[in-house]
Amino acid sequence: MTQHQTADITQAVLDRLTPETDPRFREIITAVVKHVHALVREVDLQPGEWMQAIQFLTRVGQTCDDKRQEFILLSDTLGISMLVVQMEQARRSAQALKDKSASVKPTEATVQGPFYWQGAPALPLGSDIGQGMPGEPAYYSGRVTDTHGQALANVCVDVWSGDGEGIYDMQMQDAGMRLRARFHTDAQGRYDFWSIKPFYYPVPADGPVGDMLRAMGRHPNRPGHIHMMVYRDGYVPLTTHLFPADSPYLDSDAVFGVRDSLVVPFEKHAPGAAPRGKTMDQTWHSASYDFALAPA
Amino acid sequence: MTQHQTADITQAVLDRLTPETDPRFREIITAVVKHVHALVREVDLQPGEWMQAIQFLTRVGQTCDDKRQEFILLSDTLGISMLVVQMEQARRSAQALKDKSASVKPTEATVQGPFYWQGAPALPLGSDIGQGMPGEPAYYSGRVTDTHGQALANVCVDVWSGDGEGIYDMQMQDAGMRLRARFHTDAQGRYDFWSIKPFYYPVPADGPVGDMLRAMGRHPNRPGHIHMMVYRDGYVPLTTHLFPADSPYLDSDAVFGVRDSLVVPFEKHAPGAAPRGKTMDQTWHSASYDFALAPA
Repeated sequence: MTQHQTADITQAVLDRLTPETDPRFREIITAVVKHVHALVREVDLQPGEWMQAIQFLTRVGQTCDDKRQEFILLSDTLGISMLVVQMEQARRSAQALKDKSASVKPTEATVQGPFYWQGAPALPLGSDIGQGMPGEPAYYSGRVTDTHGQALANVCVDVWSGDGEGIYDMQMQDAGMRLRARFHTDAQGRYDFWSIKPFYYPVPADGPVGDMLRAMGRHPNRPGHIHMMVYRDGYVPLTTHLFPADSPYLDSDAVFGVRDSLVVPFEKHAPGAAPRGKTMDQTWHSASYDFALAPA
Repeated sequence: MTQHQTADITQAVLDRLTPETDPRFREIITAVVKHVHALVREVDLQPGEWMQAIQFLTRVGQTCDDKRQEFILLSDTLGISMLVVQMEQARRSAQALKDKSASVKPTEATVQGPFYWQGAPALPLGSDIGQGMPGEPAYYSGRVTDTHGQALANVCVDVWSGDGEGIYDMQMQDAGMRLRARFHTDAQGRYDFWSIKPFYYPVPADGPVGDMLRAMGRHPNRPGHIHMMVYRDGYVPLTTHLFPADSPYLDSDAVFGVRDSLVVPFEKHAPGAAPRGKTMDQTWHSASYDFALAPA
């Protein structure tokens, strides 16, 4: 008897795994096969629907290029990325909690998103990366500490955001770096820089993921946010955002990335004297946030 | 409170579905979200593993072009395609069994595979589509009936296969049609044609699915088979294969497509007189198979 029955095709696939298979890969691929087969049975998937799924996934792959990652977007919009982030956060917090003398919780993480660009320029503290870009100026400042509240010097604070209309440099025609920089904390763990106040924006909705969101009846918008990657040897690297507290869509982020602890009031200031010796001729904002890194 | 917890992110995603969502799409996407989230939790997926999965799926999509469908291959090699086929077969058989006067079971289906090419030439019965191609000649004949054993005239028997080395025309350089044709049954429901005896071959293993198979410790081979799509108005279209009974890999088809009822003895004949007025100067084979179509 060479054939399997409908009832045992799942086991037939799993039985093909040979003993040499890497144990962790075996664990993951076994769960993939079981869940996808269970899904097909549960919804009684029709051949035409299967073909639609194949065509959808193919389009997702073919929409990816070196500036656009539609599979990450698919994962983001189905809450998968954020689930992975939160599970990692839970592991990290559990580790940090083992240290009974710790007094500060590690800062919460959120999704990295598709617009991180490695190698942003390293700039002096206080630099303005928003100059000349659309948007209202904002001054960011705060400290980076460990979970005992001790200042951490020379921590890299790698920041990136869209402009005041929610457009990232990677989405612009000339494709040079904009609104990105790496800053390093001073001896007191302090960082500060000028940029713009981030604006809400839609995730790219002209591809297959956009079609999926429309079929689900969902809007594609993310609340305004500035991305931060905060890292130094000896500490768990942190990838997170800060969200202005008055942004629309905080309660319906298209990628499920909002954490209450990352929602920050942006104070509004009239034109005039401003930090770092600036004199502003327009309304500007300030936001203050302290980060805490867990030990590696 | 705008944020969800790890425990409720799955529900948060499902809660975004609006009432206007098409009910069937809602059912499928709900199952997709639940199963993918459950999978991530079950294996405690690490961020690095998530990124590997994203990169794998992206490569699968980018390997697809108008001649290669790597997502179908992924579905095939994980037994998903065959599961969908078997569920459809089970529905069809259940329908056919309602007719208590039926005396013949509908022919079993199997996977379509990635090499179907619509619009193969319509040729007269008895034509030879294997001439000039590598491989041992084979004469195919049989009848197409309904489930009462009544002959069905003018049924299209759309056949395709690789050559005697397992290579399909779509994989060849010049990319013209080879070893494909559409035949139509005569008034007695009969079909016959000459082609080659199909040979076992590996599914394309130079892409991401090949990497996956190697990681699973699996060979990429399919037993020899000739594809048949058999269809006429008023009947459920049948997509199936015939497998030579002496082929290697019948017990470990890389795409789980073998059904015992589709394994056919290929009779071996010495050179000399052969059907359709041929005189063969080499060994040739004959295979006989009757198809039964379920009413639509």
